Amino acid sequence: MSTDFFSTHEAMLEQAVAAAAARGYWSPFSESPSPRAYGETANEDGRAAFEAYRGHDFPLTLAGATGRVGAEVSPFGFELGIRYPQVPAKALIAQSQQALESWREAGPRVWVGVALEILTRLNRHSFEMAYAVQHTTGQGFMMAFQAGGPHAQDRGVEAVAYAWQEMARIPGLVSWEKPQGKQDPIRMQKQFTVVPRGVSLIIGCSTFPTWNGYPGLFASLATGNTVIVKPHPAAILPLAITVKIAREVLVEAGFDPNVVLLAAHEASDDTAQALALDPAVKLIDFTGSSANGNWLESHARQAQVYTEKAGVNQVIIDSVDDFKSVARNLAFSFALYSGQMCTAPQNVYVPRAGIDTAGGRMTFDEVAQGLAAAVEKLTADPAKAVEITGALQNNATLRRIEEARALGLPVLCDSRRLAHPQFEAAMVQTPLLLAAEAGNPHIEREWFGPIVFVVATDSTADSLQKAQESVTAHGALTLSAYTTNAAVAKQVQKAAERSGVSLSLNLTGAVFVNQTAAFSDFHGTGANPAANAVLSDSAYVANRFRIVQTRWHA
Amino acid sequence: MSTDFFSTHEAMLEQAVAAAAARGYWSPFSESPSPRAYGETANEDGRAAFEAYRGHDFPLTLAGATGRVGAEVSPFGFELGIRYPQVPAKALIAQSQQALESWREAGPRVWVGVALEILTRLNRHSFEMAYAVQHTTGQGFMMAFQAGGPHAQDRGVEAVAYAWQEMARIPGLVSWEKPQGKQDPIRMQKQFTVVPRGVSLIIGCSTFPTWNGYPGLFASLATGNTVIVKPHPAAILPLAITVKIAREVLVEAGFDPNVVLLAAHEASDDTAQALALDPAVKLIDFTGSSANGNWLESHARQAQVYTEKAGVNQVIIDSVDDFKSVARNLAFSFALYSGQMCTAPQNVYVPRAGIDTAGGRMTFDEVAQGLAAAVEKLTADPAKAVEITGALQNNATLRRIEEARALGLPVLCDSRRLAHPQFEAAMVQTPLLLAAEAGNPHIEREWFGPIVFVVATDSTADSLQKAQESVTAHGALTLSAYTTNAAVAKQVQKAAERSGVSLSLNLTGAVFVNQTAAFSDFHGTGANPAANAVLSDSAYVANRFRIVQTRWHA
Repeated sequence: MSTDFFSTHEAMLEQAVAAAAARGYWSPFSESPSPRAYGETANEDGRAAFEAYRGHDFPLTLAGATGRVGAEVSPFGFELGIRYPQVPAKALIAQSQQALESWREAGPRVWVGVALEILTRLNRHSFEMAYAVQHTTGQGFMMAFQAGGPHAQDRGVEAVAYAWQEMARIPGLVSWEKPQGKQDPIRMQKQFTVVPRGVSLIIGCSTFPTWNGYPGLFASLATGNTVIVKPHPAAILPLAITVKIAREVLVEAGFDPNVVLLAAHEASDDTAQALALDPAVKLIDFTGSSANGNWLESHARQAQVYTEKAGVNQVIIDSVDDFKSVARNLAFSFALYSGQMCTAPQNVYVPRAGIDTAGGRMTFDEVAQGLAAAVEKLTADPAKAVEITGALQNNATLRRIEEARALGLPVLCDSRRLAHPQFEAAMVQTPLLLAAEAGNPHIEREWFGPIVFVVATDSTADSLQKAQESVTAHGALTLSAYTTNAAVAKQVQKAAERSGVSLSLNLTGAVFVNQTAAFSDFHGTGANPAANAVLSDSAYVANRFRIVQTRWHA
Repeated sequence: MSTDFFSTHEAMLEQAVAAAAARGYWSPFSESPSPRAYGETANEDGRAAFEAYRGHDFPLTLAGATGRVGAEVSPFGFELGIRYPQVPAKALIAQSQQALESWREAGPRVWVGVALEILTRLNRHSFEMAYAVQHTTGQGFMMAFQAGGPHAQDRGVEAVAYAWQEMARIPGLVSWEKPQGKQDPIRMQKQFTVVPRGVSLIIGCSTFPTWNGYPGLFASLATGNTVIVKPHPAAILPLAITVKIAREVLVEAGFDPNVVLLAAHEASDDTAQALALDPAVKLIDFTGSSANGNWLESHARQAQVYTEKAGVNQVIIDSVDDFKSVARNLAFSFALYSGQMCTAPQNVYVPRAGIDTAGGRMTFDEVAQGLAAAVEKLTADPAKAVEITGALQNNATLRRIEEARALGLPVLCDSRRLAHPQFEAAMVQTPLLLAAEAGNPHIEREWFGPIVFVVATDSTADSLQKAQESVTAHGALTLSAYTTNAAVAKQVQKAAERSGVSLSLNLTGAVFVNQTAAFSDFHGTGANPAANAVLSDSAYVANRFRIVQTRWHA
């Protein structure tokens, strides 16, 4: 009955499995929003699709809808006015369980084929997705295109590749012959069946709804589970488009579209909790606050819970060749999407006595001022700067900037409002850099947004110890270090391995600590409090299915 | 510094990885206690080693011991009188953390090599282990040899093979080159390091201390974790011998022997809880009661917890060719180690209207009586029977037989005390078979021990529904079914896959539902309440380590 999507995508799948093993550069999708890759009219088509959604009911019909919901506001300053069907949690669960009845029987080839077809179609909608991501998350257009489109799709394909790798090693039907000396051997036949866990719940975030949502969504789908996608109320559109395309593919493949469902809901209601605690929900993927993530881990005991939560990312500056290139690299990391990335650096440790550079000694103040100057330079031209910073996703981040300012710490570079040349109501702010002393309790928590502390430490050894303690206590997705000393580099690497955090050493060029590349960089380690899982590794997929065997005498 | 145990065992490891993928018959160790496999004096040497332990301090020195502990009594009727060093939980944790400092740096090849060397040496001590297992668990000698020795070692090698497979795919140092159109590519170097989770705790059981203990022990050790082995106070010796041999190998390999520690303790103290809740303990493997397993899952939140708990194993009889061979097979499963196996069948569903056989229709009563007759026949000769039944591990199981008898259900075959020809004080009982009606709430819980209910159902469809509901509600490690009808066989298989339980179909020969073979049969599914993990699959090992990466410009 179903189109053989597995055969269609088998070559890509094999490349993906190989790429995840080799961990060199590879991507099945173009990250360049160029007409050559996506077609001459792709940008205009995508923009038109986005504009057509605005002010209307989103074109998705769900059975059991009790009404419509949606109050998204673009961080660039206008209401989206899109209304999504709202289905009560109980009805969503019942529909998902019903869809599971046939989906679970389809088996790994079909699950994987359908997942890859959905991802491939999403790729064709990358411009539409870019506008949807831009105007829900506040990302600049280029990031919205790349992180919301091809890079998110990469992470989806990566998760499917890991899932396939683990399932493909289950041999199906085998013969078992146990020698019995001179007697005939005992002969058994054994059938091994991959079975899903059940209903899977994806809890989306407001900053990277697709990039953080796709790995769990596609890992669960590719292992035979049905999926309920619960977007953050502030960023529904990117996941609604995703669900719409997924359901189209499912229908073409001959399945109940309810294999993938959308749980749009009001910001203040208890939809997330009701879904998360339902006994039918066996898998939960969550990106968001530590409070909510920890609540899920503690309460949704019937499910495997994969969380990415808050952390405090740190930079250690010990010694540098060319300080200017260091400052340029870091300033970009501070400004990129206004620090609203879970990988953005927050605390920069610099020895109080200063650092060595190829051009001589720099004092702490010179380093701090140098970082501030690099930020000022990067953001000097608002028209260029807004493409890097994007807009603040919500007012809480704006208030957080004010709260940080009110700490009374020395201001190295103040956060300024930038006028956006296209969207005058856009909430755009430059990074705030403050000086702080190591041990200040205020810096030992996440300040989500464009807020950076340049922290004076006793020495690089002290920086290292503070960083390691902070990773262990508060979690982190990234650690960055600058040193020209091989022994120090080794020490930092050991500290990173001990505390379980990814390390970037001496980034000065066009690679930034905030960024990870699918198939090569693991996102998170699962070894510190910032995340209990990794995008993606075997552990991320291996618990999403089980094997049930049947044996009989041959 | 260390002997290259990896090279020594590399061929075995490769075979083990291949065997786990093919899932045909394979074992690196001989399951036959024959002089040809183990040497002419192996039995006498093993017996002598066991006798030498009796009445003495066990030859194991642990730093920080505050005294000695041990009150093991052989279920065959004598006190072992062996005293083990007792170290407080805090001191064990501190020593384990200290040992982790160097062990974690050794890397996958060394971890795996040491683990396989320990298992290979354990194999040479299989007779000594057989006596130790027999006289702590109450298993008959042959089972004690096989399940306590080579089969347990098989499960250990299997876990190491899975661990190696997952770690070996992490590539170490790689180059990453991202094309930049006409410009030079961006070149990065990336180092991926496998890091352990930390201290691993193995909580042993009193019935299969090695078979159930080795998978977790060796999976954790082979992934760079240090291990604290906490035996059940009634079955310390088998794990003490294991720890002793492990420490000898560790010292030869140049490591701190405290990489593997023994936590012997009094039956009534809180050692298990103190260890399980320590923040340093990141992995826990547990076999035992549902109450204790659920407590660990709920409370030891800092750790990955792998549990095997109680369940209600079931048999569905729909139709048979030769009832006698069915009854013989089931009677053996009831009697084997007196039902003290987590895989032993308990509830046998038979339609009230009887079943079809090749020799004509049989009524429910004929089936029930036929099963009872097969049990009587199997246990008629005490000298032969005791080799199958072994002895009851503890008085609670004896009391449970009395409690079952007191339910007032029709007795199909009463449990009799058997005189053991060699050990007159041995606590040996034949199986108790009772008739029951489906829906009787008493049968909807585990009756650990030689207690079987032959349950009248409305039909095979009813049997199937009852079985599936019970697996979902109470858990099960095995399901067994007899049917000559292909459609029914398919239905049972679907029911097994839905509820997540391993199925054995029409076992009539020398394979019993209680038994699983490493590298071929998965033990447990992790998909029902009886166990949240499987011996062994990728999911069992993938979370025992993490990957930390470091990247820098090439």
